[in-house]
Amino acid sequence: MRFLAFFLTTPVAWPRQSSVYKWNEELRSQDRPSHSARMNRLCPPCSDLGSSCCSNLFECRLWSNSSRGVEGLLKEPMGMVEGQEAVERLERLTGMLRRRGVILPAFEIHGGAKGLYDFGPVGGRLRSKVQDVWRDHWLSQGDVVEVSCPTVTPFAVLEASGHVAEFSDFMTVCLSCNEASRADTMLEGHHPNPDALPMAELQTLLDDISPACPSCGASEWSPIVAENLMFDTVIGAGSSGRPAFLRPETAQGMFTTYPAIYRHFRERLPFGAMQLGRGYRNEISPRQGMIRLREFNMAELEYFIDPASDDAPDLGAWSETAIQFVPAEGDAFEGTIPKALADGIILHPTVAWFMARTYDLMMSLGVLAPKVRFRQHDRDEMAHYALDCWDVELHGSYGWVECVGIAHRGCYDLEAHEQATGQRLRAWRTYPEPKIVDIDGWTIDGAKAGPAFRALAGQVKDKVEALAADTVFPVSIVLEGGEEVTVESAHVKRVQRTESVAGEWFIPHVV
Amino acid sequence: MRFLAFFLTTPVAWPRQSSVYKWNEELRSQDRPSHSARMNRLCPPCSDLGSSCCSNLFECRLWSNSSRGVEGLLKEPMGMVEGQEAVERLERLTGMLRRRGVILPAFEIHGGAKGLYDFGPVGGRLRSKVQDVWRDHWLSQGDVVEVSCPTVTPFAVLEASGHVAEFSDFMTVCLSCNEASRADTMLEGHHPNPDALPMAELQTLLDDISPACPSCGASEWSPIVAENLMFDTVIGAGSSGRPAFLRPETAQGMFTTYPAIYRHFRERLPFGAMQLGRGYRNEISPRQGMIRLREFNMAELEYFIDPASDDAPDLGAWSETAIQFVPAEGDAFEGTIPKALADGIILHPTVAWFMARTYDLMMSLGVLAPKVRFRQHDRDEMAHYALDCWDVELHGSYGWVECVGIAHRGCYDLEAHEQATGQRLRAWRTYPEPKIVDIDGWTIDGAKAGPAFRALAGQVKDKVEALAADTVFPVSIVLEGGEEVTVESAHVKRVQRTESVAGEWFIPHVV
Repeated sequence: MRFLAFFLTTPVAWPRQSSVYKWNEELRSQDRPSHSARMNRLCPPCSDLGSSCCSNLFECRLWSNSSRGVEGLLKEPMGMVEGQEAVERLERLTGMLRRRGVILPAFEIHGGAKGLYDFGPVGGRLRSKVQDVWRDHWLSQGDVVEVSCPTVTPFAVLEASGHVAEFSDFMTVCLSCNEASRADTMLEGHHPNPDALPMAELQTLLDDISPACPSCGASEWSPIVAENLMFDTVIGAGSSGRPAFLRPETAQGMFTTYPAIYRHFRERLPFGAMQLGRGYRNEISPRQGMIRLREFNMAELEYFIDPASDDAPDLGAWSETAIQFVPAEGDAFEGTIPKALADGIILHPTVAWFMARTYDLMMSLGVLAPKVRFRQHDRDEMAHYALDCWDVELHGSYGWVECVGIAHRGCYDLEAHEQATGQRLRAWRTYPEPKIVDIDGWTIDGAKAGPAFRALAGQVKDKVEALAADTVFPVSIVLEGGEEVTVESAHVKRVQRTESVAGEWFIPHVV
Repeated sequence: MRFLAFFLTTPVAWPRQSSVYKWNEELRSQDRPSHSARMNRLCPPCSDLGSSCCSNLFECRLWSNSSRGVEGLLKEPMGMVEGQEAVERLERLTGMLRRRGVILPAFEIHGGAKGLYDFGPVGGRLRSKVQDVWRDHWLSQGDVVEVSCPTVTPFAVLEASGHVAEFSDFMTVCLSCNEASRADTMLEGHHPNPDALPMAELQTLLDDISPACPSCGASEWSPIVAENLMFDTVIGAGSSGRPAFLRPETAQGMFTTYPAIYRHFRERLPFGAMQLGRGYRNEISPRQGMIRLREFNMAELEYFIDPASDDAPDLGAWSETAIQFVPAEGDAFEGTIPKALADGIILHPTVAWFMARTYDLMMSLGVLAPKVRFRQHDRDEMAHYALDCWDVELHGSYGWVECVGIAHRGCYDLEAHEQATGQRLRAWRTYPEPKIVDIDGWTIDGAKAGPAFRALAGQVKDKVEALAADTVFPVSIVLEGGEEVTVESAHVKRVQRTESVAGEWFIPHVV
């Protein structure tokens, strides 16, 4: 499950009862005496900053006099704001966030850097508070721990996770001004979902449409290429340096530390591990303000479960909570999470559990219920690792925007790392009753097969033990290296016994 | 002021009254019932992990039976542990931290990566708790705000800050195995302070000594080069990509956001801004476990002051607190912070204030007083930006190790960014009384000088206004472009007036 911090900036009003709002109330009451005293101070000469441009979200005279201030937002009808009005509102919001030190373009004195933002003196504290709420919400579940891993990640880790191959966008470069653009973004409006098109179809569409370059207006484009979106760097110096990336998600840390987490929970599923930290995505052409960042605050929780377990979490507490759903198939509807699970729309009870708990988190952060919905990913839209995926979307000036992703990742990640490393990333499942297994087959007689096959004896043993009980010797066997050997009956012994097997190793599934 | 998180791992015992210890107590009492129940569980077959290898620092049977456990540490005499015993103790500590999920080598299933560590299921929580203590300690001061800036930093920012030129170590490469090493590290023991040697002297020493390569044992080395220690990357794709680094310190964020912070505090010094986050240092050959990391958790606070202000913080609360000092000149001594300031050993009252508050923080984190000392940097050891610098050192198995740095950075950083960007990064100082300034000189008479000098009139005006009151016209003036013009008395007017100046802009100093 993945949370992105930009929901801080979606203009969703905070109702009075929210905990974040309460914190602001508190801030306001602390700040009032000195603030009022300061409000009467004259501006220093030559400064273009009046005292009315203060940094307190709720105190400033300009702000509280504005019909579009926080009070205005609260009074606004629940209906969604669209079109030109949304654009203007967004500009006002961005300007306000910047003037008041909430969120501002990073490195602005040096000309700025697209896709990078600072949390200023007000935003920095707000960010910490939201992180605390998130951390406490999930730790209180009792079976979740917090880990913290490096952001610099060796090539091999992200090759195993599939990010080296899959984490890319289709890029094209303007032949006139050399500015790189995302091909699918420029073709929005010419196709219902250009994001999901394969490269060849996207190329055909680009050739047909020839969109204007957002930088210079020309319409000549280089052939589309898949551009990996990870920032790359090198660990170490000189020729001993190793290629590495900045992590595209924090989730991989929970998979690479899986052995320590499994040990921590005394090898008992289910359990979860979470991490708050930076994620990186070297966007080709970041636009849309805080929605497409090159470096962002994220918070992820991975919950490890036994896919064969029937344990279902108790969703009784949410049986009356009406929520908006947009399923992958069929129409949007309002319903409850337990009902959507029972109807087979939500595919797994653990996914339903985290949807319910996430909804509670959104409410405790002060998001308004009519501005939240759960949208299920279409099959061709899902990330390379997902079996089922729901986004929590919030409605703001950009329309409905993903804020949380709840994906059933199956055993994709642990299996991928296991295959790449040869390390066991599994859990032990004890059978209710030990299974009695009859073994009837063959093995080699070391005293005779050893001298006969010498260095190949080990390989011959594996092949012989795989033979059926009714094999008649001599048989001819082809080994891995291509050598053919003949196994005589003198080389082998019959094996007949029963074994009691207490359980088995399996790869946990992850939500 | 800069805090590094590795003090988490220095084996300094926590006394019972510390807040971190209290948290562990709490954890223990919560965990006891389920823990005890789990302790009786049999290990799964095939697993080499016994239930006695549990992750709770204080509960495990192995641990509590060990004479070297936490209780053992508490009972240990205050005397310092050195030599072979220290090495063994460190190995035990590292093994324990790893087994119990506190700190473990990162990406271990993929073969690991030197200089990168994970905070595991126990360490992750401990890290958050220490960060909370740090954050609350400084925010409670009332004139400090928290900001949060990107780690990916454009080239221009770190060029202005001096890191592109100065943030380097001297590297040499083994001609036999190609492994890079730090030249000064290999020459420790052959010079009292190889760290401070210029490149030529280090080269001479390397040639004389020919140390053995730590990897392969050979003794042939490439010529020494200065290797920049920042991880580099590129923002954006294609030919429009811009060179960037991962930040070597969080402090630059407080300087680049200075205008927003100054505005937040209504343009009134003093104030502080702090940031917790990752710092990066692409060490040539990281050794010493957690002491030399390539990616680390840091917490920095920059406090902006008026260098002309006489305001001195009240250090009365520390007048009885005896602390160990190692000054740059003279012998180590035990004394109080107010006394060291009065004696001119600590050079600035604000530095003394932050030393005192930092000492309190160390105590509240549970560090034992005899294992803390303040050491002043020698002049040739200080960072490129520092006027005075004190380290808080903690004594552990590596000896005395820097944990906090408190540097008087002067106006170095803001001035450097101001020069690089042309933006004003200053504060306004209002004079107690407005200053009356007599102006007696010349300016041009626009009606006559305009037609006479045409496009050059602006430049002529600047030159004329810089002339002394007793100038006799005509005079010959050389302009920027090299043109020589003759200014007649008809072109100019005498200016005589008094002006009242209310204050001035200055660059704040930073501690």
